[in-house]
Amino acid sequence: MLKAKIFVELKPSVLDPQGKAVTNSLHNLGFKDVTQTRIGKYIEIVFDNSDKEDVSRQTTEICDSLLANLNTENYHIEIEEIKS
Amino acid sequence: MLKAKIFVELKPSVLDPQGKAVTNSLHNLGFKDVTQTRIGKYIEIVFDNSDKEDVSRQTTEICDSLLANLNTENYHIEIEEIKS
Repeated sequence: MLKAKIFVELKPSVLDPQGKAVTNSLHNLGFKDVTQTRIGKYIEIVFDNSDKEDVSRQTTEICDSLLANLNTENYHIEIEEIKS
Repeated sequence: MLKAKIFVELKPSVLDPQGKAVTNSLHNLGFKDVTQTRIGKYIEIVFDNSDKEDVSRQTTEICDSLLANLNTENYHIEIEEIKS
């Protein structure tokens, strides 16, 4: 069993209104040091497969086809073993 | 300048219908090895502050008060320096 951890974030050039709203809330709550907030997605997929290369290839395909919008988002992947 | 990376995920005991939907889509797309998918949030906050302990303390406070629902979600934090 392998777990793929996927981090999807907006490209730096893309405006993030949700992040801007969080930054404003944090300022109102008194966290004056905060200069920027970006909101992304964190996805974990468990594979019943112990071939790291194959899982890495499948995860890339999954991100490209389903999980990330490549026009506006970047992603990176980490594969780790699950101790049973 | 320091960047806090925050990973928010549902507690293992909490059902994740969005993740279940993604698992079903992946099966339909032919990814038969996928056994589970969990969807969380990935948040980056930039602080104009170079005191790691202070930023870590502030980030924990921010998560507890604004970003995570402690009834249903767990989170963990990583603090890293931004090279200027």
